[in-house]
Amino acid sequence: MWAILEPVFRAGETYAFPVDISEEDARRAWTGSPKEVFIAEDGDTGQIVGTYYLKPNHDGPGSHVCNCGYVVSADARGRGVASLMCEHSQDEAASRGFRAIQFNLVAASNDGAVRLWKKMGFDVVGTLPGAFRHPNLGFIDAHVMYKLLG
Amino acid sequence: MWAILEPVFRAGETYAFPVDISEEDARRAWTGSPKEVFIAEDGDTGQIVGTYYLKPNHDGPGSHVCNCGYVVSADARGRGVASLMCEHSQDEAASRGFRAIQFNLVAASNDGAVRLWKKMGFDVVGTLPGAFRHPNLGFIDAHVMYKLLG
Repeated sequence: MWAILEPVFRAGETYAFPVDISEEDARRAWTGSPKEVFIAEDGDTGQIVGTYYLKPNHDGPGSHVCNCGYVVSADARGRGVASLMCEHSQDEAASRGFRAIQFNLVAASNDGAVRLWKKMGFDVVGTLPGAFRHPNLGFIDAHVMYKLLG
Repeated sequence: MWAILEPVFRAGETYAFPVDISEEDARRAWTGSPKEVFIAEDGDTGQIVGTYYLKPNHDGPGSHVCNCGYVVSADARGRGVASLMCEHSQDEAASRGFRAIQFNLVAASNDGAVRLWKKMGFDVVGTLPGAFRHPNLGFIDAHVMYKLLG
């Protein structure tokens, strides 16, 4: 899984993890409680092509909204893996009683993700000015995206 | 501090902590790393009238935006303690290099807070449908509020 996550975390263009994060800290950040972690396998080769986590976005009065993060292996891009994982996560979230999924910090430069999440029924409910420090673009806006389930 | 926090957490009307949180878990939640914690004292009596925490809202590419939470003692309400703590937190945040403060989940029913934060220069940048489970009102909207510093 680290082989999939490392290049994405190191790039620092999409996820709010330190670009110099260690493997051990990344394991904790991606899989630590209360996160549940899923893996997408290629049905033919058995290769891991993606992973996502699912967790409550807040405690107590906010614990019915979950948060997910998805990463697709570099060599499996463009095959619909992110869509499949997002659909899967919505089912898993609904079955656990979550009423909505929230993405807290979607870099506005990440056109592909924004487009995909919109196609999957997520709305941009807000935009945070300069909330994402992009390695090439500097301080750029980030979206909060949200979808009510079922 | 627990005497100030407990009634607010137990009420479950404003903060996303479990209403049945233990004192020990509350200590961890309010003061645990990477949070820094501040206390407001009455200059005359030396009594603690409020507390707030300050922490990065995200890691890495999101670590220049901080998140704060403020609680005022029940018997010190209406004396401007929240305003003073919010002003103080903006100075502390700026001095640590944060570029913005974000509130992730402001219950829309919390008129007093929404009005105060707006007066202090925060914008409602987004509203999350049904994201807050209020003990009396059920699932209500929550605002994401944000202020760029300096």
